[in-house]
Amino acid sequence: MTDKSGEVLVLGIDPGTAVTGYGVVARRYGGMISLVECGVIRTSPDHVLANRIKEIYDAIVALIIRHQPFAMSVEDVFYGKNAKSTLKLGHARGAILLAGAIHELAIAEYAPRQIKKAVVGSGNATKDQVGFMVKEKLKLKEPPKPADAADGVATALCHCLIGSFPGETCL
Amino acid sequence: MTDKSGEVLVLGIDPGTAVTGYGVVARRYGGMISLVECGVIRTSPDHVLANRIKEIYDAIVALIIRHQPFAMSVEDVFYGKNAKSTLKLGHARGAILLAGAIHELAIAEYAPRQIKKAVVGSGNATKDQVGFMVKEKLKLKEPPKPADAADGVATALCHCLIGSFPGETCL
Repeated sequence: MTDKSGEVLVLGIDPGTAVTGYGVVARRYGGMISLVECGVIRTSPDHVLANRIKEIYDAIVALIIRHQPFAMSVEDVFYGKNAKSTLKLGHARGAILLAGAIHELAIAEYAPRQIKKAVVGSGNATKDQVGFMVKEKLKLKEPPKPADAADGVATALCHCLIGSFPGETCL
Repeated sequence: MTDKSGEVLVLGIDPGTAVTGYGVVARRYGGMISLVECGVIRTSPDHVLANRIKEIYDAIVALIIRHQPFAMSVEDVFYGKNAKSTLKLGHARGAILLAGAIHELAIAEYAPRQIKKAVVGSGNATKDQVGFMVKEKLKLKEPPKPADAADGVATALCHCLIGSFPGETCL
């Protein structure tokens, strides 16, 4: 939702069955950005898959309700992994997209390379480089930790940098 | 939920992004079974993935609310397909499992081979053989159509035949 200052919030998510990273980034009209919150959602491998999915879903819904973001930016999946872990990740990602669709957020999906390219300038950037550029761009003292939280923030940042926003044709 | 006659309903689901088959099978104490409803949930490839997932989720939730099943039986995914379609299927399956977890259903997952083995007697059974045995076991005039609906029914039937039920140690 856009408030009086033209500020919109973007919820960025790096999905994972065990650890889902997230970041909420505020973006003012014209492109000024700041970090609102970031963290990780952890689920236990001792829980059955359906319950792990529900834990992720509930946490994402709680973030949406608390922050009322305008958009959700979700990292796409790298297909090179083994089929079983890709499928599990698909389950978590399905629940995350569902939370966004139910709450009528604008949903953007970005490949890992697109996010690195937008945030660092190179699609081959390392995790450390992503953390460093997240810190620089958001004027933080340290990169967000753990790295999954930084990835969630980078996903939000990517959308702030290259996504489209209502009422703006370009930055 | 178990009613006075000891009847429980099992919602069987054959997940798919484009077509999800389902069947609701009633099972009385001791093992007598009958078909309550079956059908398919279709989503359009013209819709974005998040909305397709929501369409599937909404349809499953509507079935759960209407029938109040005790258990959800979900077909597992065959990993041999290409990574992209496996991942998409994972998204749909995640939303289906989430619907079951939110409504606190007992959730069982069966591999395609297990379902065929339980319903037909052979893990290599063809779609036609599955349809035929579903018809026979549920005393229907014809196999459920389309085949995805029959697969949904077979998934419910599999759980009725080999799953565990409260208060029963064996059939």
